[in-house]
Order: sequence, then structure tokens, then C-alpha cells
Amino acid sequence: MQKGFVHIYTGNGKGKTTAAVGLAIRAIGQGLKVLFIQFIKSSPTGELEILKKFNENIDIYRCSTGFIYEHPNENQKQIMKKCVSEVKEKILKNKYDLIVLDEFCNAINLGLISKKDAEELIQLKPVNAELIITGRDAPEWLIEKADLVTEMKKIKHYFDKGIKARKGIEF
Amino acid sequence: MQKGFVHIYTGNGKGKTTAAVGLAIRAIGQGLKVLFIQFIKSSPTGELEILKKFNENIDIYRCSTGFIYEHPNENQKQIMKKCVSEVKEKILKNKYDLIVLDEFCNAINLGLISKKDAEELIQLKPVNAELIITGRDAPEWLIEKADLVTEMKKIKHYFDKGIKARKGIEF
Repeated sequence: MQKGFVHIYTGNGKGKTTAAVGLAIRAIGQGLKVLFIQFIKSSPTGELEILKKFNENIDIYRCSTGFIYEHPNENQKQIMKKCVSEVKEKILKNKYDLIVLDEFCNAINLGLISKKDAEELIQLKPVNAELIITGRDAPEWLIEKADLVTEMKKIKHYFDKGIKARKGIEF
Repeated sequence: MQKGFVHIYTGNGKGKTTAAVGLAIRAIGQGLKVLFIQFIKSSPTGELEILKKFNENIDIYRCSTGFIYEHPNENQKQIMKKCVSEVKEKILKNKYDLIVLDEFCNAINLGLISKKDAEELIQLKPVNAELIITGRDAPEWLIEKADLVTEMKKIKHYFDKGIKARKGIEF
């Protein structure tokens, strides 16, 4: 049995979620089974429309807390707690080859997921499954656990010129 | 009419082609029309299997020269020349919303595409289309032309431990 690795895509540049989507698409194209978890986000995106079409190969699950103003409120913390336990169940019950935890670092940094819960979740990864984590400012302890870390570093971004997120490009 | 931007995803880390695939999938999911050009590569990949299924929204074209030992040979240069002129025709004839030039930087750095030809190709971008360029070591003159540049920087990679490319993860 081939060993699976833990990837982290972090940094302040564009490309983290899109890389995770690309990895999910590649895996589906090779017949692998994917679990795609998206933290925080709740609005519709183009990528989910496509991923959904492959529901024989992918389970999509959104832990949508909605926008967070600096600190999560009690309701948001409860949503996340329920969600994390459901995600754990899914991982234990199914044989996934690739597990994506999109915006996981943000969920940790915002205090939505404790370090302990995050560590527990990562430990559930089946030995031969690949685990993909995205989000800005990956904590040092998480980077230590990873086999592959790419920093998506912003060199230039049109957002800095006041451009707003656009349909088909940012979502 | 909304202005489209030029993106570059460069650097020595994993995530450049997968981010471009993710962007193509997002665009397709929002009903945009995509041209997906892949330079150099010729072997089958999981992502192409999936992208092909959306042929009403995507044109895929591979400029496959095969592996290049330091410098391209005459045959490889001829393949590329023909390919670049076909790509130009496609861009002029169709109304694409998103154009991906995957591994374009590598094709330039290997001398497969001259700076002049590369500049001409970029100038053909319709005003409202988004242009996505990937590849290691984006040249300075290209970075200057871009509106968004993300450096995918390798912090850690399991390849450095002798792990080989795996089906569903690397291709």
C-alpha cells in the first residue's frame, strides 16, 4: 500500500483553493475517491458546480459559518463543532484516497477549530490517503506535520488596485 | 465590458498547473469559455480526462514536444512554431473568456518560444479575457506585463526524499 502525504498550500497569494480544486479534479480523473471539505465559505462558486457533477467520486461538505468579524460567535463555534464531528465520521466510514480541508488554516487561526481538534482530524487520515490543507498563515506546528508545503506568495495582485472579486475568476 | 487580467503562477513549488486547472474548472462552472493550452507535456493526466468532458466550454490543445534535454532540437522547435501559430489562430477566431498557457514560462526559458513570439501571443489576448500563465522562473519582462503574480514557493516537498510522481496526485 502506497503511503499518502500531507500537503499544505498557504501564503497570501491567489491559487490555494484553486490548486486544491485542481488536485481534486486530477484525482477524480484517475478514478480516486475524494472528500472535499470547505470551511467558513458559504456562497456559491463555479468550482463547486463542476465538482458536484462527479458525485460518484466526490463527497462535498461545507462547514459554512458565514463571515467572521475578528472572533467567531457562539453560534459559529457550535456550527463548527458539529461539522468537525461529522467530518470525522465521514473519514472513518469511507475509503477516501484524497481529502481536502479547504481554508482549514483560517478556521484554526480564527479559533473556530482548536489545535487539539485539528490534530485529531489530521490523525484520522488513512495511511494511504493524501490530505490537502489550504489557508493563509499555516501555523508552525501544522507545517511540521506536513510532507509538502507550498507558500503561495503574492508578488502582485490586482486586488491591491481596488479590483473586486469576479464571477468565474474568484468564485 | 469588464477588463480581463494577466496572471502568472511561477516558482519551484507544487501547485502551478493544478491552480490553472482549478481556475479553468471555476470558469467552466460559471459558464465561461476556456482555451487550455499545455506546452511541452505529452503524457496523459487525470485533469485532462475531466476537462475533456466539458468540451462545449473548453478547447484543449497540447503543444507536445516531448522531453527536452537542456536544449530543444530542430524537430521540437518546428513542432512549437506550428503550434504557436495554431494557438494564435484559435485566439483570433474564438471568443474565449479565459486562456490558460500552462508551462509557458518553461517553453520560453528552454528557447522553444522566442520573447518576440511570446509577446505577440500575449498581445492577442482579447481585452475582456483573462490570461493565465504558469511555469517556473517567469522572466522579469513577463512579470512586468502581468496584473497578478503568485510565486509558488517550495517550503518542503516529498520529491526531495526520493518520492516519485504518483497517479492521481502528480498526474
